[in-house]
Amino acid sequence: MTFSALSHLECPKCGQTHDADQVIGLCPCGSPLLARYDVPAVTLTKDELAARPPDLWRYHELLPVRAPENVVTLGEGMTPLLPLPRYGREVGVERLLMKDEGLIPTGTFKARGAAVGVSRAYEVGVRRIAMPTNGNAGSSWAAYAARAGMAALISMPVAAPEICRREVKVVGAELHLVDGLIGDAAAFIREQEGYFDVSTLKEPYRIEGKKTMGLEIAEQLGWQLPDVILYPTGGGVGIIGIWKALVELRELGWIDGPLPRLVAVQSTGCAPIVQAYEKGLPESEPWPDAKTIAFGITVPKALGDFLVLQAIADTDGCAVAVDDETILAEQHHLARLEGAFICPEGAATFAAVRRLRESGWIRADDQVVALNTGLGLKYPETVPL
Amino acid sequence: MTFSALSHLECPKCGQTHDADQVIGLCPCGSPLLARYDVPAVTLTKDELAARPPDLWRYHELLPVRAPENVVTLGEGMTPLLPLPRYGREVGVERLLMKDEGLIPTGTFKARGAAVGVSRAYEVGVRRIAMPTNGNAGSSWAAYAARAGMAALISMPVAAPEICRREVKVVGAELHLVDGLIGDAAAFIREQEGYFDVSTLKEPYRIEGKKTMGLEIAEQLGWQLPDVILYPTGGGVGIIGIWKALVELRELGWIDGPLPRLVAVQSTGCAPIVQAYEKGLPESEPWPDAKTIAFGITVPKALGDFLVLQAIADTDGCAVAVDDETILAEQHHLARLEGAFICPEGAATFAAVRRLRESGWIRADDQVVALNTGLGLKYPETVPL
Repeated sequence: MTFSALSHLECPKCGQTHDADQVIGLCPCGSPLLARYDVPAVTLTKDELAARPPDLWRYHELLPVRAPENVVTLGEGMTPLLPLPRYGREVGVERLLMKDEGLIPTGTFKARGAAVGVSRAYEVGVRRIAMPTNGNAGSSWAAYAARAGMAALISMPVAAPEICRREVKVVGAELHLVDGLIGDAAAFIREQEGYFDVSTLKEPYRIEGKKTMGLEIAEQLGWQLPDVILYPTGGGVGIIGIWKALVELRELGWIDGPLPRLVAVQSTGCAPIVQAYEKGLPESEPWPDAKTIAFGITVPKALGDFLVLQAIADTDGCAVAVDDETILAEQHHLARLEGAFICPEGAATFAAVRRLRESGWIRADDQVVALNTGLGLKYPETVPL
Repeated sequence: MTFSALSHLECPKCGQTHDADQVIGLCPCGSPLLARYDVPAVTLTKDELAARPPDLWRYHELLPVRAPENVVTLGEGMTPLLPLPRYGREVGVERLLMKDEGLIPTGTFKARGAAVGVSRAYEVGVRRIAMPTNGNAGSSWAAYAARAGMAALISMPVAAPEICRREVKVVGAELHLVDGLIGDAAAFIREQEGYFDVSTLKEPYRIEGKKTMGLEIAEQLGWQLPDVILYPTGGGVGIIGIWKALVELRELGWIDGPLPRLVAVQSTGCAPIVQAYEKGLPESEPWPDAKTIAFGITVPKALGDFLVLQAIADTDGCAVAVDDETILAEQHHLARLEGAFICPEGAATFAAVRRLRESGWIRADDQVVALNTGLGLKYPETVPL
């Protein structure tokens, strides 16, 4: 049995296929590429899986790293899936669960994409990476690059959280600040020579790491899927990844029936996906003057927007925007009721749960998973002294 | 089979036994109490254990909570045990591992004691807790109290990390600041009425939570013990807990041979255990003008000091102090080589590894586990902007 069933890369826009065992970014047509696996060749059983260590590499057959010695790990994965009985009762969703991505290296779900992305980049020969970031992704990729012994150049807006700057510096990555938004940081990175650009969806494997959130939710629920999964959406890699995971599990024959309705949650300060969803468009339009306390989802125009909208459409999901005041109120409310100090992006999903229950879109007996994408600790200013 | 094999409480000083199913703090003789189990009655097998979810409640037979419905959890436990090949080679300890307690609710190992302590307090009828803290323990106990629906009063020095104040406030606990050290906070707590005092070792079950670090290390190494375990020592509950865990596993027949040599690591700014160890005393003397960047181990006189010294003596261990400058240098060095941003308390253990290797106390072929007790994220000022 081979460690990975990776077969090739495929363009979801033009359909072209590419050799996976090379350094490659986007499809020549401009679209992100998706990793494809020889799923029928996977002989893994659920029992064999259950006996493996509790990290995301337990799913190695469905991950792109071909040789175990190329795995770059800090112990990421198998984060808790916690029932929230008090909060759930209050919002009228008794079967509410939180997938808590705070309990992962660097304190946010970005670690998943970084672990798999860095491992695979290393495997195909990359030794220097560069990326623009709103903060958390940069922290994670810098950490995994250090773990791999790779050089990293990280560019972020001056307004990005201070803690992320410190995280990048402490692991010895090079930090470049721009007076602007993530798009300006991206423009700087494009000018640099000698680095592999690992911007969101510009390399094919970050999504494979994020995919493991979907694999874990399915495994943690005993391969019975929930009715709804809500995800705070900036670049949207996580929601695309969860969708991809579930489709692959269906192909593997481990799950059946309808997929969970996937919900993209945004802030009213930056809601291009919600706008496109409401207008029935296949892609989003750039959001002007993007600004929200949920810094991680300040992405005016995501490269994978069309895939996010497909994931929503394919699963009968939806997209909703909530305002910053509501996000902060929900963050504090959840902390008092359940003891969990989550990040604003995560709190946005809980605000969306409440809203969608009130509208009836979520039913009282639905089993609902809300993703908290990171630690509240990384956003100290959300709690006044 | 019963959920917990808890039998009774025992005083390690005067030997008196006490009924465990009551609200009880110290032994009337003034010593902390230890939980005792009916170990021969435990029929659990290693294979059964392996199939359980990856949190600390997998060891429920050796934990004090009698009924599963009283478990208060945020998903704590089974933190990574990471090889550190680059750093290990540099310090000359090839088989160096880090037990990373940053990947746990509230970001420090204090969550273990809080999860088990709050659960058991709830089970015996406590609904209001109070405690003094240097910061991290207060954050954890406040979070678990909120999760349990209990009231919490937390007192900490004004100089304690700001982030811990915010954590206490966000979960709705009452925060009281004192202009002094943890002893002054303790004096304030003793004056309060109507709360159960959950100060370090003043209740018997925090140590049971900390014990699970020892259980996990043994399980993660396939029930083969390492040669050395290093632990940053303030109140010392963790090192006592690890020792207790290993003794119980030996009684269970799951491990044999000599126990790992346990090392208590302190800062030169507050090193009462090291001083007592060097003088061959059975207890420590209060350390005057205690001050270190590793705030969590600023404990001038620990209630359980005699147990820490016993743990060291029983395992042929030792105690070492390292200075703040070395601690910070080691924290940054480890981050650059391995990508892990750890707390100063954790970094102290790595400084001790280097020192003890240089002196020959740690041998080149020893398997060594260094405990990182929490996230560097909670100490942002350790990395200049």
